[in-house]
Amino acid sequence: MKHINLDHLSANPLLPEVQDAMIAAIREDHGNPSSQHSKGEKALEALNRARASVAHLLNSKHPGEIVFTSGGTESINHAVKGVALSQSKKGKHIVTSNIEHSAVLRSIKRLHTMGYKVTSIPVDETGRVNPEAIAKAITDETILVSVMHSNNEIGTIQPIEEISRITREKGVIFHTDASASVGVVPIDVQKLGVDLLSFAANNFYGPAGVGGLYIRKGTPVWPLLEGGVQENNKRAGTENLIGVIGTGVAADLAKRDMESRIAHVSGLKELLLRELPNYLDNYFINGHPEHTLPNMVSVSIQYIEGESVVLMLDDEGIAVSTRSACAAGSLRASHVLLSVGRDYADAQGTMVLTFGVDNEGEDIMKFLESVKDVVKTLRKISPLYHQDEG
Amino acid sequence: MKHINLDHLSANPLLPEVQDAMIAAIREDHGNPSSQHSKGEKALEALNRARASVAHLLNSKHPGEIVFTSGGTESINHAVKGVALSQSKKGKHIVTSNIEHSAVLRSIKRLHTMGYKVTSIPVDETGRVNPEAIAKAITDETILVSVMHSNNEIGTIQPIEEISRITREKGVIFHTDASASVGVVPIDVQKLGVDLLSFAANNFYGPAGVGGLYIRKGTPVWPLLEGGVQENNKRAGTENLIGVIGTGVAADLAKRDMESRIAHVSGLKELLLRELPNYLDNYFINGHPEHTLPNMVSVSIQYIEGESVVLMLDDEGIAVSTRSACAAGSLRASHVLLSVGRDYADAQGTMVLTFGVDNEGEDIMKFLESVKDVVKTLRKISPLYHQDEG
Repeated sequence: MKHINLDHLSANPLLPEVQDAMIAAIREDHGNPSSQHSKGEKALEALNRARASVAHLLNSKHPGEIVFTSGGTESINHAVKGVALSQSKKGKHIVTSNIEHSAVLRSIKRLHTMGYKVTSIPVDETGRVNPEAIAKAITDETILVSVMHSNNEIGTIQPIEEISRITREKGVIFHTDASASVGVVPIDVQKLGVDLLSFAANNFYGPAGVGGLYIRKGTPVWPLLEGGVQENNKRAGTENLIGVIGTGVAADLAKRDMESRIAHVSGLKELLLRELPNYLDNYFINGHPEHTLPNMVSVSIQYIEGESVVLMLDDEGIAVSTRSACAAGSLRASHVLLSVGRDYADAQGTMVLTFGVDNEGEDIMKFLESVKDVVKTLRKISPLYHQDEG
Repeated sequence: MKHINLDHLSANPLLPEVQDAMIAAIREDHGNPSSQHSKGEKALEALNRARASVAHLLNSKHPGEIVFTSGGTESINHAVKGVALSQSKKGKHIVTSNIEHSAVLRSIKRLHTMGYKVTSIPVDETGRVNPEAIAKAITDETILVSVMHSNNEIGTIQPIEEISRITREKGVIFHTDASASVGVVPIDVQKLGVDLLSFAANNFYGPAGVGGLYIRKGTPVWPLLEGGVQENNKRAGTENLIGVIGTGVAADLAKRDMESRIAHVSGLKELLLRELPNYLDNYFINGHPEHTLPNMVSVSIQYIEGESVVLMLDDEGIAVSTRSACAAGSLRASHVLLSVGRDYADAQGTMVLTFGVDNEGEDIMKFLESVKDVVKTLRKISPLYHQDEG
């Protein structure tokens, strides 16, 4: 049975070129980039090459603005806590949105217990934040605005450029979590105008457990990991050089193939949305019709439980997700879906599909056939379905 | 020219078995351990297998006490900041030693700027902390004692069991940085009696950029990385599964080969110390003669600069270090050497040698021949040498 991965956000495959680069790094046995001898120098060269590749992908003009981390979560914790703690004398107010990733939510919640005040801006039914609401929320005490670039459950892309115009005018530091975006859509830190931007390498077919934080030159932020002087003194700890080398190669490929990747996944998304009415009824598509990731579809199917769909499709060799894998251990309904106006039951019946370079049109067709059967079976045993329909 | 690595603490080679396991993980393309479908389950199994291996190495009875991190530095920041911040209502006093790793020093310095008080205990000329001094330093406000298991520059091993007897009696949380020890000497968290223990995988021939934190069940500590519910809700972020798999294999091998590894490096250390007087004069061996790592020698050579020795030995294909690689970017004299009573000049003339499974007796002899020539050359141009000797 061919395995069909429609859950790329949880785990993108490593591209063959990325695999090869990482394997070569393992076999070559690089040294420690901080060592003073020649083996250390070669390691440092490899590290800087990867840094330049990522800087190029994000259009950062100074590779030193790129700090490698252990993933999107570390980057986000670093940005949110690091800015807030470093600015506590200036103020203790943070503005964010209602639909951030749990790493942003929990970092801010932690700061709240430490005396910080938080204003969380609601989103409309498409998941968009109104920049005017951000502007109104900013006070003299505001030291940080953190709004994600794209949502990791419904795909909605936020008006980051408009928000950064406001934060710059008001002199407030702006962080965006672009973990679901970098490598999927073009990200240009100059155009976006953000001060900090978090990303994860696996989202562009690099290794899991590697990520980075763009810190615009001059932005004050306390390091989260302190000790040695690695990463231009911005993030201590001996580097995961094997992972970083894979990330550099993945960044080069993402830059090179951006257009064709977008065309490919957009085609799959269009096919799915066009065909879906022929296979399912009583469902909603979540998110914004235009300002959206080209590789993601979130669909709330009424009268069923998403978790059951995941398990039954898994039996058919099809991997999908009910929501972001990070939150999979949590039993609560998605805060994102509740924020865009879904009720509890529909939120529980939601499935997130993310496409990748390894998917083909026939994967979508196979999924449609399977989900039709699965939903039919599940609704047969759903008392709510019979009540409403009957 | 055969490359001779006498700088294992900076970069241990990956053992062939570790390389093979990591390469298999890269080729097999594991999923995300948090995913709900079967690919995620396989990834979760691999993660838990590695966790059990590390727990076995440390003699932890509950694998859930092992939290994988991005390395020793993250583990230390997590332990020190996490305990201190979680206990702030109880007290704000920390006891540590004068010769900790920069990750401990800088984490504590950060807490100091946030209103925490710190008592730093001096060491004797062998680098040992007196447990009685720790006992005297503890007050009703003390919430954390952090003393390293072994020093990463001079190899001195601390009386951790005696210190933990004190901290347990007084009800204070005890963290030890065992980054230079785990995999080199037997580490048994039951015997040591510590509450938290930091380690780095590369020190036992696992990958760089992977480490872990042992957190004894029930120890209160705020997570450093917050977001998803990974690592039993103690450390958020998608796992570096490739690195963790390599770490598990490295832990199994460290457990299996502990005795023979100690015998091997001890033999090399004895050879070096026995032969050194035949090749050098005017030098000191730093650290404790017995309570010391079997794989490390720190030697302060008078009238020369350690950095010059490193570069000249590098030309001969021999890698040594002046001090821990983490601190290599810093130009100050080692706080460890100053703490054990070396003066500034001797501290600058210090070389740290760390041996590994890939070294042989002839590496030591080659090093001795080379260092003799190098020191002779450097002293020829040293005004201080001629002044003192002449």
